[in-house]
Parts: sequence; C-alpha cells; structure tokens
Amino acid sequence: MSVIQVERKVLAKNDIIANQNRETFTNNKNFTINLVSSPGSGKTSLVEKTIQHCNGKFKIAVIEGDVQTDLDAQRIDKLNVPVAQIVTNGGCHLEANLVKDAMNDLNVEDIDLVIIENVGNLVCPAGYDLGEDMKVVFVSVTEGDDKPLKYPAMFRNAAACVINKIDLVPYLNCSVEELKKNALSINPQLKIFLTSCITNEGIDEWCNWLRSNLKK
Amino acid sequence: MSVIQVERKVLAKNDIIANQNRETFTNNKNFTINLVSSPGSGKTSLVEKTIQHCNGKFKIAVIEGDVQTDLDAQRIDKLNVPVAQIVTNGGCHLEANLVKDAMNDLNVEDIDLVIIENVGNLVCPAGYDLGEDMKVVFVSVTEGDDKPLKYPAMFRNAAACVINKIDLVPYLNCSVEELKKNALSINPQLKIFLTSCITNEGIDEWCNWLRSNLKK
Repeated sequence: MSVIQVERKVLAKNDIIANQNRETFTNNKNFTINLVSSPGSGKTSLVEKTIQHCNGKFKIAVIEGDVQTDLDAQRIDKLNVPVAQIVTNGGCHLEANLVKDAMNDLNVEDIDLVIIENVGNLVCPAGYDLGEDMKVVFVSVTEGDDKPLKYPAMFRNAAACVINKIDLVPYLNCSVEELKKNALSINPQLKIFLTSCITNEGIDEWCNWLRSNLKK
Repeated sequence: MSVIQVERKVLAKNDIIANQNRETFTNNKNFTINLVSSPGSGKTSLVEKTIQHCNGKFKIAVIEGDVQTDLDAQRIDKLNVPVAQIVTNGGCHLEANLVKDAMNDLNVEDIDLVIIENVGNLVCPAGYDLGEDMKVVFVSVTEGDDKPLKYPAMFRNAAACVINKIDLVPYLNCSVEELKKNALSINPQLKIFLTSCITNEGIDEWCNWLRSNLKK
C-alpha cells in the first residue's frame, strides 16, 4: 500500500464527515466560514473585531484550531461568544471530525455565523473540507506580494481573500495592487477585502459582507 | 494498515537518505543550515543579505524549496551563487531525497556554507531531517510574540532563532522581549538573533556566527 492510497482514504473519510457537518450547518441555517492563512496573519484579531462590530446584530460562535495552546480561545472567550478550542497536538490542519466534535460541544443551532479559525498554515488546510460554506484566505501585507503565486492551492480553494495589516504598507516593500493582481490571477472569482485592525479600515465592509451572507 | 504506520515508514526512509546527505556534507566539510519559518518571514531576503555580506569571504550555495514557482531561485541567481530550486508541487515540506537530488545538481564539494530554504510552513518541516547540521527557525515580529508557544516543535528542533523585520516593531503590538522569552521557554539552548534587512541591524552578528561555524 502506498502513501498516496492512504492519503486518498483519509481524504475520502474526511469528506464523508465534512458532508455530515455541512448538512448540520444547512439544517441550522448557519453561515460557516473556514479562515485559513500563514501563522500570524491576524486571523484572531479580525475575529475579535468582527465580534465587537457584529455581535449585537447577529449571533456568532467560534471554533479555534491550533497546534498547541488555547491562547486564541482565551482571547475570544473574553468577548462572551461561544468558543471551542481544538488543539491538534502537532497536526498541521483541522479535519472534519474535529470540527464535528467542536460543534457538539458548542451547540450551534441558534447561531447565525460560525467562524472556524484553522491552524496557521498556508499549505495543508487547503485540501481539507470541514463542511464550511467557504474558505476565506488571509494574507498579511508583511508577508510580501508574491504569496498567492507561491501557495496557489489556498487561493484557488477560497471564495474570499482578506489582505490584512494594511496600515503597515508605508513601511514595507509590498505592493497591494500586485498582491491583489497575483491573487486574482490564481482565482478571478475571489472577493477581496483590505483590512486593518489598527485603523479599522475595511472592517465595516467585511462585516456587511458577512451579514449579507447570513441564511436567517 | 493505519496512517501512523505509513508515516513512520516515510519518516524512516527519509532518515536513511538524510544520513546519506549528512555523510556527503561531512565529507565535503559543508556547514549546512535548514531555514524554516512561516511564509513571508523574510528568509529569502536574509539569504540575499547573507550572500552580499559574505560571498567574498567564503563560498555559499543555496537550495530553495517552494510549493510553486522558482521566484526565490531567480532572486538568488542574480547574486551569482550556485542555486537549485525544488518545487514540491503542493508538498508542504522538503524531504531528504529532494535535497539529495539538488545536491547532485549543484556540486557542493568546494562550498563552505550550504543554505537550504525550506517551504514556508511553521508546522510540517519540523519533523523532517534533511541531513543539515542545524535548523534555523525564522519568525517575523509581524507574526506576534506568541508563535513559539503555538508552534513549539519548530522552536524545539532548531539550534538558532532569527527574529526578523525588527525595524517594524514601533508599528506593532509585539514585544521582542516576550517573543525571546517564549522562544527560550520552549528551547533554552536557542541562539537568538535580532535582524532587519532594511536597517541591516544584526546582519554582521549573523554573518560572523555563520563564519564561526564553517568547517574549513
């Protein structure tokens, strides 16, 4: 038996559970997004901002994925929304069965928006369906404008792209126009947001878009 | 057969080839470092700086690893040092057999310093020996000071840690002291460098340390 066959088995098993998750999300009318990016692109900070801006208007729950620690869940818990932490203990991506367990812990029936924050890794999570409505790929301007070309699968498999930490552009050798162009060259359908959690640029637009996607 | 068994087989096979690579490096008296980090932490920029500062003093060759594109090898090639690009086509880390092929292409016999730049991924490359003398983990201050705690394996398996883009600290919510403390809490033996490719802070110290490790 070769590794490739085993990988296929793992993915096939993952897809079965991902479809069960999707059925649950659909029955609950949860809009569910899977946030993927490099470590340190600012996913958790934008989740915090999203909760602060939107939580009076609709109900949010968060599933945090990390290799180690529950630091991110601690940050979200302070904002008084339901949150579950998945610690992968070295695993480089979330899988559907872990999300299923987290959903059972959280009780997401009356939730409008379920945010899954994946492990910080711009490669491996691209291949794993968790049952979400869409992947949203984050890229910080500090990472440089070539990242969509170097890590294309993640940009190809996402429906939206958040270009974050936009306030730092004046101090960097990074062209936002080039970054956008590179992302759209991989996936012309990407909905692109430019955001900063320091200046709040783009946060209203991001939250309005989330709201427009809600199912109830 | 379970996935874990297959993974062990893959790792065991990798270790055999890694030991062959190590024997070759030892026979050639190559000092070999494996640079690992998140995407966009500035590994390639620091490799460029290293070549500009050191290439008159000792001989450098570079092996670039990327999921897609040869953009990084193109950058290094402009500096007139031997460079090989490994494109993993979706693979999330370098393996020893790929490095072995690159070594054969490069002819590293008379080289003093072999720099292997791994795929940008703070998780998966931690577990793969390539035959290098040591791993050097890079972390950009833009990624936040909690990364060593959230991705401990990479910091545990490295001998040195480059805290990069130090010029951006004034614009960030990142404490370099906290970042150092967190890195040393995972691995108290880490040799730590603070660097910036914009201001050249720390570049001399980094290059002197490389020079002190050469074997010929």
